[in-house]
Amino acid sequence: MPRSLQEVADFVGARVVGDGSGRISGVASLGAASAGDLVFVEDEKNLAAALASKAGAVIAGAFAQAQQTSKPLLLSDQPRLAFARAAEFLLPPQGVITGVHATAVVHATAKLGMQAAIGERVVIRESVEIGPGTTVAAGCVIGPKVSIGSDCRIYPNVTIYPNTRLGDRVIVHAGVVLGSDGFGYVRDRDTGKYFKFPQIGRLEIEDDVEIGANATVDRGALEATRIGRGTKIDNLVHVGHNVQIGEDVVIAAQTGLSGSAVVEDAVIIGGQVGIADHVRIEAGAILGAQSGIPSKKIIRGKGVVFWGTPARPIGEYLKELATLARLTRKK
Amino acid sequence: MPRSLQEVADFVGARVVGDGSGRISGVASLGAASAGDLVFVEDEKNLAAALASKAGAVIAGAFAQAQQTSKPLLLSDQPRLAFARAAEFLLPPQGVITGVHATAVVHATAKLGMQAAIGERVVIRESVEIGPGTTVAAGCVIGPKVSIGSDCRIYPNVTIYPNTRLGDRVIVHAGVVLGSDGFGYVRDRDTGKYFKFPQIGRLEIEDDVEIGANATVDRGALEATRIGRGTKIDNLVHVGHNVQIGEDVVIAAQTGLSGSAVVEDAVIIGGQVGIADHVRIEAGAILGAQSGIPSKKIIRGKGVVFWGTPARPIGEYLKELATLARLTRKK
Amino acid sequence: MPRSLQEVADFVGARVVGDGSGRISGVASLGAASAGDLVFVEDEKNLAAALASKAGAVIAGAFAQAQQTSKPLLLSDQPRLAFARAAEFLLPPQGVITGVHATAVVHATAKLGMQAAIGERVVIRESVEIGPGTTVAAGCVIGPKVSIGSDCRIYPNVTIYPNTRLGDRVIVHAGVVLGSDGFGYVRDRDTGKYFKFPQIGRLEIEDDVEIGANATVDRGALEATRIGRGTKIDNLVHVGHNVQIGEDVVIAAQTGLSGSAVVEDAVIIGGQVGIADHVRIEAGAILGAQSGIPSKKIIRGKGVVFWGTPARPIGEYLKELATLARLTRKK
Repeated sequence: MPRSLQEVADFVGARVVGDGSGRISGVASLGAASAGDLVFVEDEKNLAAALASKAGAVIAGAFAQAQQTSKPLLLSDQPRLAFARAAEFLLPPQGVITGVHATAVVHATAKLGMQAAIGERVVIRESVEIGPGTTVAAGCVIGPKVSIGSDCRIYPNVTIYPNTRLGDRVIVHAGVVLGSDGFGYVRDRDTGKYFKFPQIGRLEIEDDVEIGANATVDRGALEATRIGRGTKIDNLVHVGHNVQIGEDVVIAAQTGLSGSAVVEDAVIIGGQVGIADHVRIEAGAILGAQSGIPSKKIIRGKGVVFWGTPARPIGEYLKELATLARLTRKK
Repeated sequence: MPRSLQEVADFVGARVVGDGSGRISGVASLGAASAGDLVFVEDEKNLAAALASKAGAVIAGAFAQAQQTSKPLLLSDQPRLAFARAAEFLLPPQGVITGVHATAVVHATAKLGMQAAIGERVVIRESVEIGPGTTVAAGCVIGPKVSIGSDCRIYPNVTIYPNTRLGDRVIVHAGVVLGSDGFGYVRDRDTGKYFKFPQIGRLEIEDDVEIGANATVDRGALEATRIGRGTKIDNLVHVGHNVQIGEDVVIAAQTGLSGSAVVEDAVIIGGQVGIADHVRIEAGAILGAQSGIPSKKIIRGKGVVFWGTPARPIGEYLKELATLARLTRKK
Repeated sequence: MPRSLQEVADFVGARVVGDGSGRISGVASLGAASAGDLVFVEDEKNLAAALASKAGAVIAGAFAQAQQTSKPLLLSDQPRLAFARAAEFLLPPQGVITGVHATAVVHATAKLGMQAAIGERVVIRESVEIGPGTTVAAGCVIGPKVSIGSDCRIYPNVTIYPNTRLGDRVIVHAGVVLGSDGFGYVRDRDTGKYFKFPQIGRLEIEDDVEIGANATVDRGALEATRIGRGTKIDNLVHVGHNVQIGEDVVIAAQTGLSGSAVVEDAVIIGGQVGIADHVRIEAGAILGAQSGIPSKKIIRGKGVVFWGTPARPIGEYLKELATLARLTRKK
C-alpha cells in the first residue's frame, strides 16, 4: 500500500531531504524502477545513476547530502538496511491466504489464534497450537502437539513432526521438514544389523528464524535440537539431531550439520560446508564454502575465516595451495 | 502403443535394413528385451549380443550394415540418440491423469488450456495460466499469477511461488520448489540482527527445461532468476536468486549456484559442485564433480575441464596431486 | 505403554539385577530421566552418574554387576543396543493414524492390507498394493502399480513414482521422492540439444530400509535401482538411476551416488560424499565425509577408511596434508 516518503523515513529511521509528501508504493533496482519506487545506493559512485533513474526517491548515505537534486533523498547510516526495512514496510507478503479453508482438516483439539490463516488441504493434528497472525499455507501437515507462535509464515507442503515448537515471526519455506528422526542407529555386534536408536527428543526454533526451501531439521534423539533467535538457514540445509545453533547465525545452502554439533552466536557458514558430529564453532567464526570440520573439532576465533577440508585458517590454506602450485611448476 | 518399425525409423530419422513392417511397443536393455522391444548398440563389439537378444529389432550405427541377420536393423549416425527418441515415440509418460480432479481447488480466475490435467488436491491460486496439454499432478500448489506453458509435466507435491513463469514442455519432478525467496539479508551494524533484503523478483524457466526431484530454484531479489531453453537440472540442486543459466546446460545432482552466478550456454556441471556468488562460467566449460568456484571468478574455456576447490584446469590439479603424493612418499 | 522391567529385559535379552517387577514407560538421557524411565551407560566411568539419576533402572554392561545399588540394573553385552531395543519395545511411533481418512483418494483397484492406515489427503492410484499394518501419512502420493509391504511407515508428503516396490518395515520420512526419473540425456551431435534417455526402469527397496527426509532415489533407466535389506539412508541423500546398494549399508546426509554405482554390503559412507558413476565400493569399506570417488573407481578393503577427493586411504591423505603444511611453513 502506498505510503508517504516521510512515513517510510520514520519507519526505517532515515532523514528526508526534499519533499517528504510524495507517495511510494514499492522498491526496485535502478534499472527497473518507476516513479512509485524507492531505490538505494551505498556509495557515491552510483549516486548519479540513482538520481538519473525513474525512481521516485533514493535512499543514500551521508555522502549524498550535499547533492543538488530535485529528487527526494532518504539519508541513512546504513542505506542497504534502510532499503530492506522500507521493502518490509511497503510490501506485504504475496499470495497470503485468510481464514481456515474448507478443505483443511483441523483436529477439534487444535487451538488457532486470532487471524491465523490455514490454507487449502492443510492437516492440523491433535493438540496443535497456532498463534495469532500466523499463516499455514496449502498442503502443510502439522503433527500432534506442535506449537507455532504468532505472525509466522509456513509456506506450502511443509511437514512438521510431533512436539516441534516454533517461536514468533518464524518463516518456513516450501517443502521443509522439521522435527524428523535423527540418523542414529546401534549396530548389533553379533549380526551386523542396525537398530534405531530412539529419536524421541524435541525441536525448538526460536523467534525470527527463517528456513529455506526443502531444508531438513531433525529433532533431538533424547533431548532437543535448538535453533536460536534470528538465525537464517538457506535451502537444502541439513541440521542433525541434538544440534545447538545460537542466535543470528547465517547458514548458506546445502550445508550439513551432524549430530550434536554446536554453533555459537553470529557464526557465518558458507554453502556446502560439512560439520561433523560434536564439533563446536565458536561465536563469530566464519566458514568458507565447502569447508569441512572433522568430528569433535573446535573452531575458535571471532572474524577468522576457515577454509578447506579439514578446515584451517584461510591464510594458511591459501599459502598451502600456493606452495603446491609452485612445487608442481618447478618439477 | 505399438508402431511399425518403419514408423519408428521415420520418427527418429533412421534407415530400416530388413523388414520394416514388424510392430514394436517398447525399448529395453539387451538383457531384458522381449520380441516387442527395440534395443541399441553403439559399437561393433556389442552387436553380436544385440542380435542374439530377444529384441524385435536393433538400432545400430553404420558398422552394422554389412551384417547378415534376420533381425531388422535401424541404422543411425547416432544410435543412442535414435534409441532415446524411439522411446519418446513409443512410450507415453506413466501415471498420467486427465481432466480436473474433483478434489482440486482451482481459483475462478485461473485459465486452463485445452486438455490441461489437474490432479488430486492440486491448489491453483488466482490469475494462474496453464497451457494446453499440461499436467499438474496431485498435491501441487501453484501460487498467484504463475504462468505454465503447454505440454508441461509437473509431478506431485511441487510448490510454485507467485509470478513464476514456465515455458513449454518443461518437466518438474516431485517435491521441487520454484520461485522461493532468495537468501538475502542485511545485517544491522548496531544490533547484529539480520533483516530480510527484499526477495520480490521473478523466476523464468524457458522451454524444454527439466528439473529433478526436490531441487530448489529461488526467484530474483529485485529482478529475475532465469533458466535457459533445454537446460537439465538434476535432483537436489540449488539455484540461488538472480542466477542466469544459459541454454542446453547440464547440472548434476546436489550442485549449488549462489546468488547472481552466470552460467553460459552448453556448460556441463558435475555433481556437488559449489558455485559462489557472481561467478561466470563461460560457454562450453566443464566443471568436475565437487569442484568449487570462489566468488566473482570467471571460468573460461570451451571444453576445458576444471576440478578441485578452488577449481583449476584438471591437468594442473592432477599434477599437483601427483607432486604431493611424491613428496610425501619421499619424506 | 508401561511394562515391567522383566518384560523389557526379556525383549532385549538382558539380565535383571535387583527387582524386576517395577514398571517402566520410557527411555531418557541421564539428565532428563524420571522414575518411569530407563537410562543406559556403556562404561564404568558414567555408572555413578546413572545410578544418581532419577531413572527407574539402568542398562549397563558387565562392569556394573559388582555394584551395590538399590536401583535395578539390566545387564547386557551391548548396553546401547539393549537401550535402543527397549525404546522400540516401550515407545510406539508418535502421531500414528488409523483407518482410511475420508479425504484420501484411493483408486478402486488398490488393495489395502488389514490395518493399513491411510492419512488425510493421501492419493493412491490404480493397482497399488499396501501391506497389513502399513501407515501412509497425510499428503503422500502413491503412483500406479506401487507395492508397499507390511508394517511400513510412510511419513507425510512423500511421492512414490509408478512401479516402485518397497519391502516390509520400510520407513520413509517426509518429503522423500522415490522412483523419480534418472538424470540421463543424449546430446544430439548436430544441434547440441539434449534428449531424454528412457527412464522406465524400476526401484526396489528391500526390508528394514529407512530413508531420511527429502532424500531422492531415482528408478533405473532400463532396469532397476536397488537398495538392500537393512540399509539406512540419511536426509537429502541422492541415489541415482541403476545404483545397486547392498545390505546393512549406512549413508549419511547429503551424500550423492551417481548412476550405476555399486555399494556392497556393510559399507559406511559419511556425509556429503560424492560417488561418481559406475564406481564400486567393496564390502565393509568406510568413506570419510566429503570424500569423492571418481568415475569407475573401485574402493577395496573392509574396514579401511578413505578420505579426500579423489579419495585415498586416510593415513596417506593425512600424511599428504602434513607434508603440505610442513613445506609451506618451511618456505
